[in-house]
Amino acid sequence: MRYLLTVSYDGTNYGGWQRQKNAITVQERLEAALTAVFHQTVKTAAASRTDAGVHALGQRVCFSAKDCKIPIEKLPLVTNSHLPEDIAITAAEPVDDQFNPRFRAREKTYHYNIWHSNCPNPLIRRTAVFFPYHLDVGLMKEAAKAFEGKHDFAAFRAAGSNVLTTVREIHECAVRKDGSMITISISGGGFLYNMARIIAGTLIAAGQGKIPAMDIPEIIRSRDRTRAGKTMPPQGLTLIEIKY
Amino acid sequence: MRYLLTVSYDGTNYGGWQRQKNAITVQERLEAALTAVFHQTVKTAAASRTDAGVHALGQRVCFSAKDCKIPIEKLPLVTNSHLPEDIAITAAEPVDDQFNPRFRAREKTYHYNIWHSNCPNPLIRRTAVFFPYHLDVGLMKEAAKAFEGKHDFAAFRAAGSNVLTTVREIHECAVRKDGSMITISISGGGFLYNMARIIAGTLIAAGQGKIPAMDIPEIIRSRDRTRAGKTMPPQGLTLIEIKY
Repeated sequence: MRYLLTVSYDGTNYGGWQRQKNAITVQERLEAALTAVFHQTVKTAAASRTDAGVHALGQRVCFSAKDCKIPIEKLPLVTNSHLPEDIAITAAEPVDDQFNPRFRAREKTYHYNIWHSNCPNPLIRRTAVFFPYHLDVGLMKEAAKAFEGKHDFAAFRAAGSNVLTTVREIHECAVRKDGSMITISISGGGFLYNMARIIAGTLIAAGQGKIPAMDIPEIIRSRDRTRAGKTMPPQGLTLIEIKY
Repeated sequence: MRYLLTVSYDGTNYGGWQRQKNAITVQERLEAALTAVFHQTVKTAAASRTDAGVHALGQRVCFSAKDCKIPIEKLPLVTNSHLPEDIAITAAEPVDDQFNPRFRAREKTYHYNIWHSNCPNPLIRRTAVFFPYHLDVGLMKEAAKAFEGKHDFAAFRAAGSNVLTTVREIHECAVRKDGSMITISISGGGFLYNMARIIAGTLIAAGQGKIPAMDIPEIIRSRDRTRAGKTMPPQGLTLIEIKY
C-alpha cells in the first residue's frame, strides 16, 4: 500500500528535508519513526526538498509499505509519538501505487515572513527575518504582481542548479502586512532552486526603492541572476501547502 | 540615572526571570549585557518575576547606573548586540530615582495560548500548548467574565506562596479564537503566584464542561485551591504588557 502524508516541521535544527551525511535531516527522522511503526524499512519521497532551516506546514511525503494493522486515520498520532516535537504528521491518506508527490503536485504555496520593526521579536525569530530598515509595502505589492504568469525564471535561481527548463508558472504573488509582520505569499506550479527566497529578496529591494517594480519584467527577460535581489535567509520561508 | 526598559524574551531556554543558582535566567543574561555596556556592575529589578518557560513581549525592567555616553534611544540596539537572540530590549526611557517597576505598575496583561486542533503544530509549539480535546469556546468566554472584578483569589494561587493579601482586581478576562488558536487574555492590577496559569486551567475545564461557568463565583468564594482547575504548563503564557 502507498501512503501520502501531510507533514509540518520547524526546520531550525535540521539540515533540510533530504537525507545527507553531515547533518540530521527531517527525512531521516521521519523514516526512522515510520520504520519503527511499520516494523519494516520505510523509504520516503517528498514533494519539495526544503533547504536547511526552511519550515513546513504542509509538506507532502509518500512511502510504500506492506499493510499495517494501524487504521490510516490513527497513523499520524501513532507515528508522532516516535517523532521529536519539531516534526509532526498532520494527515495520512492512501494513494495509487504510482503516486509521485513531486510530479503530481499542481500547486505549491510558500510564505516568506519579515518582521518589519525597529525592534527584534524573540518570539517569532525562528520563522521570520528581522528587517529594521525602511520598506514601502505598496511598492512591494506592485512589484509582486510582475512575477505572476508563465516566465523563464533563470534570473531567480541559485547558480549550479541543473534542470531541463527554467520556465515556471506563478499563479499568485502577493504581499500583506499585519502589524509589524510582512508576509510574501507565492503560489505556483513549481519552483527553481532558491527561487522563493530570491523573489523575496527582490521584493525587499523593491520595497527599499532599489529595484523599481516596472524593471521586474526586464530583469526576468534578462535571465541574469545578478540583476535580481539577494537570496533571503532560510528561516523566513515556510512551505504552506501543496495541491494535487 | 535610573532607566526603565521594555524587554521581550522567549523563555524556553531559561529558568525564569529571576537570578538563581541552578539555572541560567533572563535577569542574569540581561545584567551581564548591561554591565558590559555601562562598564559598571548593573543590578536590575523587574515588574514581574516570570516563571521558567514563560515568555514576555513587554516585561519592564529598571536599573540605576552612572551616566552613560550612549544616547538612551540607542541603548536597546547597543545592548541587544550583547544579548542572545532569545532576549531583546525593545525600548528604554528615563525614570525618577525612586521608580519601582513592580509597585508602580497599574495593569499587567498576560496571554495564554492554546493550539486547539487534532494535530500538533511544530511552528508554534514553543509559545502555545497543544490541546486536541473538545473545548466549547462559548462556555470559556462565559466563564472568563466571572473572573472580572475585585475578588479574593486564594483559590487561584500556587500553594506555598506568601503574600499579605490574596485580593486582586481583574480588569478584563476574555477568550478569543482565531483559526485553531485560542487565546485567553487576562489584564489586572496584580497577579498571585501561578494565578494566570490556574485561571487558564479553570477556563479549559469550563470549555470541557467539567466546571460550569455559573460555579466560578462560588469557587472564588471558597478560597479552596482544589476546586479550581489545573495549573497549565508555562510555555503557553506570555507577559504582553505592563501599564504605568
